[in-house]
Amino acid sequence: MARSETDSIGAIDVSDDAYWGAQTQRSIENFPFGAMERMPLGIVHALALVKQAAARVNRTHGLDPALGQAIEAAAADVAAGRFDDQFPLVIWQTGSGTQSNMNVNEVIAGIANERLSGQRGGKSPVHPNDDVNRGQSSNDSFPTALHVAAVIALHRDLLPALDRLHAALDAKARDWAHLVKIGRTHLQDATPLTLGQEFSGYVRQLAATRERLSDAERHLLQLAQGGTAVGTGLNAPEGFADAIANELAQLTGHAFDTAPNKFEALASNDALVQFSATLATLAVALTKIANDIRLLGSGPRSGLGELDLPANEPGSSIMPGKVNPTQCEMLTMVAAQVIGNHQAVTVGGLQGHLELNVFKPMIGAAVLRSVHLLSVGMASFAERCVEGLEANEARIAELVERSLMLVTALAPEIGYDNAAKIAKTAHAEGLSLRQAGLKLGLVDAATFDSVVRPQDMV
Amino acid sequence: MARSETDSIGAIDVSDDAYWGAQTQRSIENFPFGAMERMPLGIVHALALVKQAAARVNRTHGLDPALGQAIEAAAADVAAGRFDDQFPLVIWQTGSGTQSNMNVNEVIAGIANERLSGQRGGKSPVHPNDDVNRGQSSNDSFPTALHVAAVIALHRDLLPALDRLHAALDAKARDWAHLVKIGRTHLQDATPLTLGQEFSGYVRQLAATRERLSDAERHLLQLAQGGTAVGTGLNAPEGFADAIANELAQLTGHAFDTAPNKFEALASNDALVQFSATLATLAVALTKIANDIRLLGSGPRSGLGELDLPANEPGSSIMPGKVNPTQCEMLTMVAAQVIGNHQAVTVGGLQGHLELNVFKPMIGAAVLRSVHLLSVGMASFAERCVEGLEANEARIAELVERSLMLVTALAPEIGYDNAAKIAKTAHAEGLSLRQAGLKLGLVDAATFDSVVRPQDMV
Amino acid sequence: MARSETDSIGAIDVSDDAYWGAQTQRSIENFPFGAMERMPLGIVHALALVKQAAARVNRTHGLDPALGQAIEAAAADVAAGRFDDQFPLVIWQTGSGTQSNMNVNEVIAGIANERLSGQRGGKSPVHPNDDVNRGQSSNDSFPTALHVAAVIALHRDLLPALDRLHAALDAKARDWAHLVKIGRTHLQDATPLTLGQEFSGYVRQLAATRERLSDAERHLLQLAQGGTAVGTGLNAPEGFADAIANELAQLTGHAFDTAPNKFEALASNDALVQFSATLATLAVALTKIANDIRLLGSGPRSGLGELDLPANEPGSSIMPGKVNPTQCEMLTMVAAQVIGNHQAVTVGGLQGHLELNVFKPMIGAAVLRSVHLLSVGMASFAERCVEGLEANEARIAELVERSLMLVTALAPEIGYDNAAKIAKTAHAEGLSLRQAGLKLGLVDAATFDSVVRPQDMV
Amino acid sequence: MARSETDSIGAIDVSDDAYWGAQTQRSIENFPFGAMERMPLGIVHALALVKQAAARVNRTHGLDPALGQAIEAAAADVAAGRFDDQFPLVIWQTGSGTQSNMNVNEVIAGIANERLSGQRGGKSPVHPNDDVNRGQSSNDSFPTALHVAAVIALHRDLLPALDRLHAALDAKARDWAHLVKIGRTHLQDATPLTLGQEFSGYVRQLAATRERLSDAERHLLQLAQGGTAVGTGLNAPEGFADAIANELAQLTGHAFDTAPNKFEALASNDALVQFSATLATLAVALTKIANDIRLLGSGPRSGLGELDLPANEPGSSIMPGKVNPTQCEMLTMVAAQVIGNHQAVTVGGLQGHLELNVFKPMIGAAVLRSVHLLSVGMASFAERCVEGLEANEARIAELVERSLMLVTALAPEIGYDNAAKIAKTAHAEGLSLRQAGLKLGLVDAATFDSVVRPQDMV
Repeated sequence: MARSETDSIGAIDVSDDAYWGAQTQRSIENFPFGAMERMPLGIVHALALVKQAAARVNRTHGLDPALGQAIEAAAADVAAGRFDDQFPLVIWQTGSGTQSNMNVNEVIAGIANERLSGQRGGKSPVHPNDDVNRGQSSNDSFPTALHVAAVIALHRDLLPALDRLHAALDAKARDWAHLVKIGRTHLQDATPLTLGQEFSGYVRQLAATRERLSDAERHLLQLAQGGTAVGTGLNAPEGFADAIANELAQLTGHAFDTAPNKFEALASNDALVQFSATLATLAVALTKIANDIRLLGSGPRSGLGELDLPANEPGSSIMPGKVNPTQCEMLTMVAAQVIGNHQAVTVGGLQGHLELNVFKPMIGAAVLRSVHLLSVGMASFAERCVEGLEANEARIAELVERSLMLVTALAPEIGYDNAAKIAKTAHAEGLSLRQAGLKLGLVDAATFDSVVRPQDMV
Repeated sequence: MARSETDSIGAIDVSDDAYWGAQTQRSIENFPFGAMERMPLGIVHALALVKQAAARVNRTHGLDPALGQAIEAAAADVAAGRFDDQFPLVIWQTGSGTQSNMNVNEVIAGIANERLSGQRGGKSPVHPNDDVNRGQSSNDSFPTALHVAAVIALHRDLLPALDRLHAALDAKARDWAHLVKIGRTHLQDATPLTLGQEFSGYVRQLAATRERLSDAERHLLQLAQGGTAVGTGLNAPEGFADAIANELAQLTGHAFDTAPNKFEALASNDALVQFSATLATLAVALTKIANDIRLLGSGPRSGLGELDLPANEPGSSIMPGKVNPTQCEMLTMVAAQVIGNHQAVTVGGLQGHLELNVFKPMIGAAVLRSVHLLSVGMASFAERCVEGLEANEARIAELVERSLMLVTALAPEIGYDNAAKIAKTAHAEGLSLRQAGLKLGLVDAATFDSVVRPQDMV
Repeated sequence: MARSETDSIGAIDVSDDAYWGAQTQRSIENFPFGAMERMPLGIVHALALVKQAAARVNRTHGLDPALGQAIEAAAADVAAGRFDDQFPLVIWQTGSGTQSNMNVNEVIAGIANERLSGQRGGKSPVHPNDDVNRGQSSNDSFPTALHVAAVIALHRDLLPALDRLHAALDAKARDWAHLVKIGRTHLQDATPLTLGQEFSGYVRQLAATRERLSDAERHLLQLAQGGTAVGTGLNAPEGFADAIANELAQLTGHAFDTAPNKFEALASNDALVQFSATLATLAVALTKIANDIRLLGSGPRSGLGELDLPANEPGSSIMPGKVNPTQCEMLTMVAAQVIGNHQAVTVGGLQGHLELNVFKPMIGAAVLRSVHLLSVGMASFAERCVEGLEANEARIAELVERSLMLVTALAPEIGYDNAAKIAKTAHAEGLSLRQAGLKLGLVDAATFDSVVRPQDMV
Repeated sequence: MARSETDSIGAIDVSDDAYWGAQTQRSIENFPFGAMERMPLGIVHALALVKQAAARVNRTHGLDPALGQAIEAAAADVAAGRFDDQFPLVIWQTGSGTQSNMNVNEVIAGIANERLSGQRGGKSPVHPNDDVNRGQSSNDSFPTALHVAAVIALHRDLLPALDRLHAALDAKARDWAHLVKIGRTHLQDATPLTLGQEFSGYVRQLAATRERLSDAERHLLQLAQGGTAVGTGLNAPEGFADAIANELAQLTGHAFDTAPNKFEALASNDALVQFSATLATLAVALTKIANDIRLLGSGPRSGLGELDLPANEPGSSIMPGKVNPTQCEMLTMVAAQVIGNHQAVTVGGLQGHLELNVFKPMIGAAVLRSVHLLSVGMASFAERCVEGLEANEARIAELVERSLMLVTALAPEIGYDNAAKIAKTAHAEGLSLRQAGLKLGLVDAATFDSVVRPQDMV
């Protein structure tokens, strides 16, 4: 069974079950990409928060209190995820996000109208445009929602996952603070360090990138709302921009503020571009970390073999007994996609025209997907890989002892060129460094033993 | 209610509803990314085709005929989409796709076992590894499935959509073959051409990219199957590689052949990288086309205004009467994501290690998403934008007539420098070219009228 | 004429003119990419600053004062650009930058030796490794030099250029603060704003990105020096890391500090990745700005025509009188290359192995080229385009007056749906809004005239 | 000493030494990027070939034979590199390449005029526009030159380098055809293969990419010339397009043809985008190959150690005796830059506007730089790394013998699950597979010895 809904183009049938109206229905039909391409719910919920905040502010500017209350209640329900099945629209729609903004306006009106009048949907007593969207445009509401959604996901998902991974790596760095191992530069044997020192580098990578995320967040906290259609704030009441930022700060607990320039806030998405860029930097760091762990865990008998990774699953359908670094593989695949998403965001970000950039749904969806992938990926990697890592101490000791690169310690004693001779001789003749040094007469035994001490070289 | 399933790690509970076994269940728990990140069904269906083909070949190499028939029937059902809810695994798993390969092995075994024994799931009489995966490894089955899935999607979705868009643009190019309009280079007024000529450029862009897609497809038609774990074909019977390629060609109607070198086919994903690159070139072409149409349709009163776009929906929640180029916006957003996906594929493609590249699920999923987005995007753009385009002939005529650039036609007559003087004078003094030329005495009226004829300049 | 120089591999001929030694000579022969691929001089100069700082610090740790002074003087001369022809090595060499580090070590030793002994080149009395490179490794010196070079170029070139462009745009924003024009969203006519407001968005884009650059700089100020080969600081004296950072701060006037973790500082290039990412965000912003100016300047008679761009050169070899937005074209091409360079940096940044990332020369060269291109590009764009922009006030007034989108101002008075009807009628029948509103009886003349006032809508 | 040259803007001083005219001089001053950013000479030479071909064709269409001959001779000299110092313009100029086109027009006229009249430069008797550029526009000449330059560089530089690397890898594949080694998938020990098989995968990667390059070249062979300013061919004589393609084919020996649609050929750069994409696919393949060789050569004592790389230079300024995979590092850095360049090309390629894409100089320069880097990089890698590779046969034998993964050979005999048990037991208890199998009673000695034979598993 269907009812008829109307917009400025005309009437269109909408299923009786649905809370949405004509504009949502038209978008369903005009952009048939399927359910896997739905607008992320994080954006829908953030739009609902905007509507909730707007209703509060609009009540101080003449919105009927009963309608305002109904809008606010409906918006809160949408924001809490109670109507998620009412948002069928896909990412690939109008580039301003107008249709998703209207989907939210229509569903909130539709809920409020059902509660107030018993009649689901429609435009009375609550009108999706005149009441729910009052004082707003898609052009300011949608970018506001993207910032709100990104900040929420950052704090709810990404930073906790990053912190968990940071803590897991840091615990290993501390556990292994004194475990001396061979260093490798150019993938070639180098002077020793401790396994803890090696992991401390990863810990610092994450800590530094956390700072970068906070830097990028600063601009996300600035909201476009109040600019309305082109940035001038036409049809929004005096003070609307500040008031709605305050309400959103209260609703979410994040330090939202109004953007200092609304023309920039509508016409560019630079803040999201930079946030995405920072997610890509995080992806770069994670790739490095996961690749190292994969490499250190290579083997069991023909690789480096310094780390044992937890066996979460059988590794192969044909090679029994093999355990693969699947969490490293997952995380590096996630990282590749995040880097790709940033490229998409970049291409979208640079193509704004005059008062509006119309790549907003793609940019928002790509950023939120990147946050999601990184969040689940880091948490899983921490839980199912890093926390279960074990150092293969026998293997580590074996490698450090037979290394040629300890010769570096001799350079300050006997000069660079002589030290090089010893190493080359040992390598060519299969000798230990000590044997080679004594044979060449370039160092005496006592000096060698007092100088070439891996534990003193870290 | 749950039953117990086992793998080489041990026992694990699986819901009674499920057809899958222990390895699938473990993957569900180890990679909690959620339903929106599921492995594309196109890959699942292609894996099922591989299993169907393998069962046929294995019957000639000693597989029990009853089991073989049961496997083949179950695989055909999976390939036809009758068990899509049995494939809950996500993209972000082991980088060889082992878990999705096992998901398919287990479900096919589970279906066959239910049919043969009344007992859903399990390993008897049909064993997921020993029977369904017989003669195969994830390392060759999964890349085979990615190629099969890509070729199927190319022919079923992408090329028809491209052809439809090509036809729509070509129809306009023909309709407007004689409609003279102002050309623009550097976004500045230039010599005239016809609107049909302008659109013929788009038609050629699509035709040329269609050739590029066929070039890229050539390498997709080469299948890894038969290489088993590292490319040597260990544990696969003699002739398995050729036979399975033949079966897949018969099952799908595409000219699959066995890859000339299985080491390359497992260790690199270059064929998919190049296919993805070609999708990105298509995205580049589509961006150009959609941007031009957006620009030519700008207005209604303060833009170029040469084209009228169909009004599919109300354009704005605040600005009544405005109709936006939403299909252009959709298509350029799609293009940006495809370009980004290619970056992800590139980053994955370059990170193979020795006998196996382990970014396969990400690469496969990104490529199939790109194909899907481009397919729906082009078909929708053709149907909802290009086919409904109308030329604003009055506006086009007005612009061409007042143009200064028709002066180019004079250069062969009076020399480049003199022609430039006429144009500059007309521009500075607000004159027509004819007025300026006569005033400067650089051309006479008869010459001007016989030479400066837009319809002769195209 | 040639002299013989030696390294641990053996002897090699070096031209008598050259100050360099064996390792530089070998690199010349091993990497024949040609002069256009030379290592950027900014990196060479920064390495020389590192050597100058190291000589100062090494004097407090036992370096012979006469040698130390000679090294310092030679290093200062190299840093000042007095020996630029002595650095023939290319970007594409060992991934740690070892060869360029040795080039600098050898040339400084070669100069010092000539001054001290009359003999150019060689290893005595000043040894390139034992004295010039004392306490250092390529693995810490080279990344230190990359950070130093980037910070110098940022302050010397990029920020002044950005500030000039910011000032030029801001001056226009102020000049045009009251010039009302049509807004455009979706490239469609929208409600009005002032030309100054439009430009204020660009001003804000630059100001925000300047903050982002400062954020990114914070991590560039942290130096790897002191980590030596693998991050442990082996062979560097106690306190070396802090002391050298202090000396570099004094030598350059920038707030350099030692990196909190040297393992991260050698094994990752995340700080450069994020800096490059921020340059790419700047490129995104500049593309938007230059594209808008190109679009607003389109014409002269068949485009938007709201801006007149300065005519710096003849625009076309065939179309006389045409003036093209060449500075916009230059800047958007620069931006594209910077975005590409960031992709190269990303691909390099993610491929570190264990204790060292060996994509450093490529990363450093790409970042410095991006800084150079953006710096010259922005300064030129400011000087040769923005500062000379003129508003075409007659055209701007004409467009705003005939716009349909002023109807938005009526929506609060007569409702969204009625306002839409007026606009559609005006559009369909070629009427003004006023005519359409009165004809439809949806608004009276007095209301219309008091409400629809562009100057009140901005 | 300077002379005065003029263009449509006015007079400007040009150094007496220079052959160029006013438009070149203006560009020098308007785009001060410096000598390292010069337009690649490959493009200059290709433009000169276009002028040479045009002069030939124009003689059949009324160009004075004496002038035509002088133009042709001067153009041939420029194409042969005899006037390379006369092309000071940079990449970052007008996006159509107009200024480089004029630089070539002016220098050819300047040479011809000097030869004909004794007076360097100027416009008489040979006029840069009316004579040298006759029948052409920058808009068709410049993209023609980009295609010509790319095809020349492809055949002169890239394919020979690719073939050399292909041959070097193929020789190793043949030499090592029977050298059995451990395979590795997921960087974990896997079933064996031969070192020759491993290298045969690289050989196939190169062969397949060579086919891809030929595919991409097909569209490069189609030339824009004859389209003149907007694609209509205005001011070019009948048959000009075909004739000039024929002349260019004769001059270069490559199968150039005229583009089937000139509107596409000016307005898009899709052929270059696809060629660049294919270069990036080559970069992906090379990264894989170089990374594998780096990994197989890791050590000398703490890595995989299966390959010995040639020692071209001392590896470190602090660690004596160390030899680094510097050619691998060079090649992977080159690959990263090529991938980045493709991103730049993509961003430029998608931003065309109507009749002209104005990112041509950037696109052309990036593509030619990518070709150069890959050409020198592959040739050097072949010569200085691959050809000198040696297999460490003792190490290879040691690793294969102690591997657990040979257990795979048992699976068809004793079943997957039993085989897994043996491998796990051997791993846990440090046993050989044989010991574990016998201990568990899952296989007897005779079976084991007849089945587990690495040489039979490849």
